[in-house]
Amino acid sequence: MSDLTQEEKTYFMQEALKEARLSLAKEDIPIGCVIVKKGEIIGRGHNAREELNQAVMHAEIMAINAANRHEGNWRLLDSTLFVTIEPCVMCSGAIGLARIPQVIYGAENQKFGAGGSLYNILQDKRLNHRVSLESGILAAECAQLMQDFFRQRRTKQ
Amino acid sequence: MSDLTQEEKTYFMQEALKEARLSLAKEDIPIGCVIVKKGEIIGRGHNAREELNQAVMHAEIMAINAANRHEGNWRLLDSTLFVTIEPCVMCSGAIGLARIPQVIYGAENQKFGAGGSLYNILQDKRLNHRVSLESGILAAECAQLMQDFFRQRRTKQ
Repeated sequence: MSDLTQEEKTYFMQEALKEARLSLAKEDIPIGCVIVKKGEIIGRGHNAREELNQAVMHAEIMAINAANRHEGNWRLLDSTLFVTIEPCVMCSGAIGLARIPQVIYGAENQKFGAGGSLYNILQDKRLNHRVSLESGILAAECAQLMQDFFRQRRTKQ
Repeated sequence: MSDLTQEEKTYFMQEALKEARLSLAKEDIPIGCVIVKKGEIIGRGHNAREELNQAVMHAEIMAINAANRHEGNWRLLDSTLFVTIEPCVMCSGAIGLARIPQVIYGAENQKFGAGGSLYNILQDKRLNHRVSLESGILAAECAQLMQDFFRQRRTKQ
């Protein structure tokens, strides 16, 4: 886990937002993620459920898989995961299993978030792994992307 | 979701146990999973975290990915997931996301299970998807495989 400056946090969340926009190409819910270690992005991912027709291919899972391959290690010690939207139950479980010590998310997910909203899986002491958690970085942009997506989808229907 | 006979449940849990034994080759914790639809296995998986050096490659995730590919669909409606050990938080989240309506597990996981032990993610009404849950099929065999694995690992250390 590293001490990132506010400027660095904003930079990496912008990178996560770039990933989120890639989801839009196949009408996937726009959520993006990057994993950072020693100032370098070691894994990127965007939600690709519709694109790949795979239920588990959320942004965080894609980024964890990419970072695992990059590092040649399933343990992502000393890394920080940036994600545009608060992680769901599955992804929060995955973050713990990958031993990621720090998570920074943009906007809350009141309905399905497991970083404090519906559950607080990320900080459950019983799970052998606790995460330093921060939120609100570029929250407005992260939330806006989601709102635009759902508004467009409703209009189409 | 289908009405399986006790004989069919035992048969498919034995198939999950075969998968679990495959984990042992690379010293992975022996957990196996099969997903069944209309009497046919549409996805198989075993825990392969060490084998693949990927944190999320639990038996259930591997089987869901395989079943998604088999069906060409991220929704696994009308299917039953058999797994030798109670699913963790990540896998319980994934089961819901894949819309799997029925889960049958062998032995409980008191420490990390999210099918009633630590959490009951699978049956949380708020998550838009609830699962019919059954446990105890070949529980002794499923648990024994785990106990033997951890005993051997302690002896080696």
